[in-house]
Amino acid sequence: MDRDLHQQIAFMMETDKLKRIIRRNYNADGSRLENTAEHSWQITLMALTLSEHAEESIDITKVIKMLLIHDLVEIDAGDTYLYGEFDLEERDTKEQQAAERIFGLLPEYQQTDFMKLWQEFEAIETPEARFAKAIDRLMPILNNYHSGGRSWKENNISREQVLDKCSGIQHGSEKLWAYAQKLIDQAKEKGYLK
Amino acid sequence: MDRDLHQQIAFMMETDKLKRIIRRNYNADGSRLENTAEHSWQITLMALTLSEHAEESIDITKVIKMLLIHDLVEIDAGDTYLYGEFDLEERDTKEQQAAERIFGLLPEYQQTDFMKLWQEFEAIETPEARFAKAIDRLMPILNNYHSGGRSWKENNISREQVLDKCSGIQHGSEKLWAYAQKLIDQAKEKGYLK
Repeated sequence: MDRDLHQQIAFMMETDKLKRIIRRNYNADGSRLENTAEHSWQITLMALTLSEHAEESIDITKVIKMLLIHDLVEIDAGDTYLYGEFDLEERDTKEQQAAERIFGLLPEYQQTDFMKLWQEFEAIETPEARFAKAIDRLMPILNNYHSGGRSWKENNISREQVLDKCSGIQHGSEKLWAYAQKLIDQAKEKGYLK
Repeated sequence: MDRDLHQQIAFMMETDKLKRIIRRNYNADGSRLENTAEHSWQITLMALTLSEHAEESIDITKVIKMLLIHDLVEIDAGDTYLYGEFDLEERDTKEQQAAERIFGLLPEYQQTDFMKLWQEFEAIETPEARFAKAIDRLMPILNNYHSGGRSWKENNISREQVLDKCSGIQHGSEKLWAYAQKLIDQAKEKGYLK
């Protein structure tokens, strides 16, 4: 077996650990907390399904690639709860180290490629990153809303917190942000949000 | 909200049910059975990572799209165990009905697009479908091998059965099939396979 394939298989076996990373959000039916692997699938499919609503012209293949790999760093750094308190610098350092270790398992040309995609997603400075980030924010709002706000209630989250943390959706898609805002207002009316 | 977006969101909420479909394969660490949503993420990422080994020239975006949606029919039809006994015609009918209902939630132009991708994957007659199917067969071999053959042992599977059911990998990639065969032989030596 050649060295590249050996490295790629080692990387794929490492990715299996993402199935063990448990997020703070429930599945839409509220039955259990979702893991990051299934979340990654769902938002990648969502980006594909909603691509026509992107604010700017986007390369959907790039968006999909970003979303497939964007959370792999959680294997080492863990999931950071959007509404939790955390040291931003400490988290960024942990995630950077995780990216270096995990993408570092790949052949060199591929680790450069994956690292660039991850950095582009994190920087949110391109149309693709803005749309990918919007999708990553929108899906949890939908799942939270459909589970009767289970995770929001458990964590005592307010309407204002969601509006604040998710307002970046508008930079990926004004249309999806208008939709999200309506849902957030309805969630407040129903008592899912403070 | 316009009708298309309303339909797309309804489709996305329906996809959440794929997280509840439990497969017969374990995660690589053997800790629990995997679900179809996380499996779909893992093989989509695998296709991206191993695309250079495809036997023929492929449109990787098409492969990725196929793999993201190929198992959605399991929401209605359930997971069919590769090594189990089942009525092929009955399963195909169930999956066809599932595809019509689930993709039918989408706007018309999109349901046609997704249905075509699913049918192309199932027919295995294009380079993209051959590579996608190869990846869908290869990942479970890897996870089974790494979990000490847990699912193979529980289901009393033989080396010959795996070779028979997975030989199609060669049509997607001779190189990956050569690798898989070695792993299957090692699994037999270690007592993971009959």
